[in-house]
Amino acid sequence: MAIFFHWTDANEDVWKKAFKEAGIDSEILTVNDLTDSNVESVKYVIAWAPPQGVLKRFSNLKYIFSIGAGVTHITDDPEAPEGVPIVRLQDDMLILDMSCHILHWVLHFHRFYYQYGHYQKEQKWLRHRYCDNSDKRVGIMGLGQTGQDACRRLAGLGFDVTGWARSPKAIGGVRCLHGNDQFDELLKSSDILINLLPLTPETENILNADSFNKMPAGSFVINCSRGASINDDDLLAALDSGHIEAAALDVFRIEPLPQGHPYWEHKNVFVTPHAAAPSNEGSAARFISGQIRKAMDGGTPAPIVDIQRGY
Amino acid sequence: MAIFFHWTDANEDVWKKAFKEAGIDSEILTVNDLTDSNVESVKYVIAWAPPQGVLKRFSNLKYIFSIGAGVTHITDDPEAPEGVPIVRLQDDMLILDMSCHILHWVLHFHRFYYQYGHYQKEQKWLRHRYCDNSDKRVGIMGLGQTGQDACRRLAGLGFDVTGWARSPKAIGGVRCLHGNDQFDELLKSSDILINLLPLTPETENILNADSFNKMPAGSFVINCSRGASINDDDLLAALDSGHIEAAALDVFRIEPLPQGHPYWEHKNVFVTPHAAAPSNEGSAARFISGQIRKAMDGGTPAPIVDIQRGY
Repeated sequence: MAIFFHWTDANEDVWKKAFKEAGIDSEILTVNDLTDSNVESVKYVIAWAPPQGVLKRFSNLKYIFSIGAGVTHITDDPEAPEGVPIVRLQDDMLILDMSCHILHWVLHFHRFYYQYGHYQKEQKWLRHRYCDNSDKRVGIMGLGQTGQDACRRLAGLGFDVTGWARSPKAIGGVRCLHGNDQFDELLKSSDILINLLPLTPETENILNADSFNKMPAGSFVINCSRGASINDDDLLAALDSGHIEAAALDVFRIEPLPQGHPYWEHKNVFVTPHAAAPSNEGSAARFISGQIRKAMDGGTPAPIVDIQRGY
Repeated sequence: MAIFFHWTDANEDVWKKAFKEAGIDSEILTVNDLTDSNVESVKYVIAWAPPQGVLKRFSNLKYIFSIGAGVTHITDDPEAPEGVPIVRLQDDMLILDMSCHILHWVLHFHRFYYQYGHYQKEQKWLRHRYCDNSDKRVGIMGLGQTGQDACRRLAGLGFDVTGWARSPKAIGGVRCLHGNDQFDELLKSSDILINLLPLTPETENILNADSFNKMPAGSFVINCSRGASINDDDLLAALDSGHIEAAALDVFRIEPLPQGHPYWEHKNVFVTPHAAAPSNEGSAARFISGQIRKAMDGGTPAPIVDIQRGY
């Protein structure tokens, strides 16, 4: 039995340590090790963006483990095997990191720190009055583990939090909406709107002129899932009109964000380089090793991605 | 029985509502109402920065209620009556607001958002690696209710928190140091240092070249109590040498921060206009009315300031 491993940026020691701790002593193969005979022995794949056509070579594959919460880096390969379950990374460190990113930007906007940054350039001492946290309505699109954690932490700071997901959810202290019918209600009640939705055909451009118009005047957008969820021209127009006051964007349609893109130069767009919750290699390696151990012991690793749904 | 009220910025309706809710129907006098006869009837003072010499006129004064957590705006009057207890504002909203300010700046520095701001101007896509929250050491000077709340919330995000106060304290999940002997230990173990100490002769310039030198190279300072706690020249020198990487300053020796002050123009100084926890008039009025109610019913309002100690 062998494991195929593909991640060009990997720190080998980190993974060796995690495999050892999980009691995994299987052969680890990388792209250059593959032969027509040893591909038969590969039962598990651990991968970030494997080269197209590699995955189809493994005829005895049981599970593919994604080194990331998203899986399009695997499913984008049209030859990727269809019947093999993909396990995505579910990492408590990533969840905490994402919540910290969200807390930071919610506070940054709610408390006008972005304005104080502008004022400082002019040496202007001007204090903004802000509403109580309990009067600030924060909306979160996407209620997976990350969205739920962010909801709870924002509610813990007293914000008026509404979550929205495809299917019904229940989170203590948080109003939960779901489905297309309730999406407008989310938009209407989001002074600050956070996008955590995975990218699927349904969520591409889900934030567009129409949705921005339904948001309150002077509201804020925080995108930390995928760039293609936003229609960029529509967001820029909404920012220029002032209807959307500011945006914190961590993800973009093309990354790195190209030189000269209007987002770079917009006064009220805050660009971060896909840094909201970068993989923590140590905890990723521990999580994946633990799930492989489970599979080797006859259990079912989790969470398995619903390919139809896209996450 | 009468109450003397002095706050030039007050919203009269807010206070009337709070008095009514607390069942206070005493006469409310302001500076222009005072006569030699009615000053005798004043038992309680509610004040922000009362004009010098006014307080000594009230010979039957029982309590002075400060419209703020600090009380130097009262005790700076050399003629202020010495035996009258001063009750300072203890406002859950202020505590939450201060914690939010602290969380924002800790995350802003820990997660390099200040650097991303600099990079954006150069259209530079460069991601910083950051340590786990649990490896980031955050030190808090001052463990009153505000400091304790900030400690707990930072520990709740997994940071390695150390608190320091004049006298011993115990806070779950937080290492507590105290007294002059352990101050150096605090400095040594603060990658991010937050000052919440009240201003007293002992805390003036407590953050100076000597203390900055004891902090780890590349550490951060967040000041949100009083400007005079910091020796400004020393901080600027430490910032210029890079030993202190950046500072978020909300309070200054002279406020508004004067035009042309080097803090305004320093790339890694983030100036906010004493906005960390501005008084929330509604909740301040409710708190003070409640404490006056207590005094009228024969109880003892709290928290009473220890004038010797200064807070």
